[in-house]
Amino acid sequence: MKIPDKTHKQITLDHGSGGSASSELIESLFLEYLTDPVLNRMEDAAVLNVRGKKLAFSTDSFVVDPIFFPGGSIGELAINGTINDLAMQGARPVCLSLGLIIEEGLGFKDLERIIRDIAHACRKAEVPVVTGDTKVVPRGKADRIFINTSGIGIVEEGTDISPARIRKGDAILLSGSVADHGITILTSREGLEFQGKLQSDTCALHKMVQGILGNLLQSDSISALHALRDPTRGGLATTLSELARSSSACMEIFEKEIPIAAPVRAACELMGLDPLYIANEGKFIAIAEEQYAESIIDVMRSFPEGQNSIIIGKVTDNYPGRVVVHTGSGGSRLAEPLTGEPLPRIC
Amino acid sequence: MKIPDKTHKQITLDHGSGGSASSELIESLFLEYLTDPVLNRMEDAAVLNVRGKKLAFSTDSFVVDPIFFPGGSIGELAINGTINDLAMQGARPVCLSLGLIIEEGLGFKDLERIIRDIAHACRKAEVPVVTGDTKVVPRGKADRIFINTSGIGIVEEGTDISPARIRKGDAILLSGSVADHGITILTSREGLEFQGKLQSDTCALHKMVQGILGNLLQSDSISALHALRDPTRGGLATTLSELARSSSACMEIFEKEIPIAAPVRAACELMGLDPLYIANEGKFIAIAEEQYAESIIDVMRSFPEGQNSIIIGKVTDNYPGRVVVHTGSGGSRLAEPLTGEPLPRIC
Repeated sequence: MKIPDKTHKQITLDHGSGGSASSELIESLFLEYLTDPVLNRMEDAAVLNVRGKKLAFSTDSFVVDPIFFPGGSIGELAINGTINDLAMQGARPVCLSLGLIIEEGLGFKDLERIIRDIAHACRKAEVPVVTGDTKVVPRGKADRIFINTSGIGIVEEGTDISPARIRKGDAILLSGSVADHGITILTSREGLEFQGKLQSDTCALHKMVQGILGNLLQSDSISALHALRDPTRGGLATTLSELARSSSACMEIFEKEIPIAAPVRAACELMGLDPLYIANEGKFIAIAEEQYAESIIDVMRSFPEGQNSIIIGKVTDNYPGRVVVHTGSGGSRLAEPLTGEPLPRIC
Repeated sequence: MKIPDKTHKQITLDHGSGGSASSELIESLFLEYLTDPVLNRMEDAAVLNVRGKKLAFSTDSFVVDPIFFPGGSIGELAINGTINDLAMQGARPVCLSLGLIIEEGLGFKDLERIIRDIAHACRKAEVPVVTGDTKVVPRGKADRIFINTSGIGIVEEGTDISPARIRKGDAILLSGSVADHGITILTSREGLEFQGKLQSDTCALHKMVQGILGNLLQSDSISALHALRDPTRGGLATTLSELARSSSACMEIFEKEIPIAAPVRAACELMGLDPLYIANEGKFIAIAEEQYAESIIDVMRSFPEGQNSIIIGKVTDNYPGRVVVHTGSGGSRLAEPLTGEPLPRIC
């Protein structure tokens, strides 16, 4: 067996960052032992054929700290997060599972509030929880509550969304402002206060994605949508790096086009954090044929959660497998995927 | 909202026991908010119609302590446990998800051993992991590793397994000895040593169930199999109580028929534990029309993991909703579902 880094004999927070240490662990350990044609694709959700139907299947565990924060809670995050993983394969989510690991001593009122948030998020998304499991561990053996959700979605025939389809000339679209979730969690955890209203962007994205797909289908151009990805852990820069790497294309983005809320920008500057590396929980990147980009943006903007959608760049062949950020001042830099873990337990 | 017990304002270990405190929590909180026709059925796995196909969907989190024990590890338990939840709906499992929550500092060697056990259990069961997620939490915020697995299975047309189908006169079948898993965990946790070889019974049961269904199908009597359930947390007595309660039938079992391995019996006697309440991870109860019971037992015995299968009792209408245990001495007693939590973190 290849140990990811022989100088590290223990799991560190970096291995859960969603950045390069995570990828190394997954590739050198999990894929080494669990090799499977579907798993090996390493998408946010597996897409598999079950009796002639294409199903998407995804899982995500949520360990966010704090469990309640401006704009949401671990409950909403758990529902929206797995729905979004399914949506990023172009799937229509049909049902979810809910697995709770609770630390002995969690207050009933807190648990009730979380379950109410889960129920609210399910109703809003129109995706039900159909099966569940609850474990309780002794005090000190977990941190209040951890939630796993898994989900099943249906992928319509003709939908083929995969980084492998990314081509030179494609436009890079973003559904709104970045870094809201990560900065909200960080500042509420540390008890920092910033001018303006910081709040998590947690929301379900499947209706917007279905809107795009429905619109493209009408004009018989569904194949124009090449890739979708939600920039969660590691943020926009890490997600684009992964897409660049798996497509061997170059992602060129224009920093000044990327929407960032004023209080988020202020918080990032004060803390010395780059908003392109901060987690989002209600945004996605779409990569599509350039000639369809404007009409896709129009559809995205027709949804409240996509009203700030914008084209942020294009796919080229200048630096294959890399991300180029054109800065406001006219310069440019290469963006690497996240390596360290600046923000543990962000989701 | 109805708080399950107003004198308890906090979650206790009992709420994760699989016994009556768990049921109360689920019914008064989860089903109150998350009401859904499939969830409300409260089966080990949800069975739902997806585009005209019957799918089973299940989730389970594993928090067992210790993570390695005689006969298995948390890895095998996680794979076999979810496969068994699907199998208990008569489903053929097709794929699994794997969600890891790792405590910072877990040794790579331990993680590798767990992943190897997962891979081994998957290969043996012929059910792959197709999607996964890894989170790492800081030292002291979890206990080494927690694993969630969810799974999808296919339920063939004509398969209708549900406690609602239990009828007076049915036979109660058990696939082998009880209490092996729980006693193994307890003694290895406490560092106790007993004469004889104690080991967990963790194994996947779907092939045995498919064998039974295939055999019944051949004789056009698939409807003879009424209910299946694996007696995990809470053990045989709690599981039978649940079946009695949901079918309003009386489950009468003969204590002397129930296989218990000699070292397990000795350990139970020494520790004052009733083996009927101790968890199993590789056994199931089948409730079937009496005239088919012997042929079902024959099929079960043809599998290595079912070689000690036996008829342990029958369904009557003597005490509707209750379990009657006929003791060796000719007396009888009513068995209540588990209320306290004698063995936390058994799975």
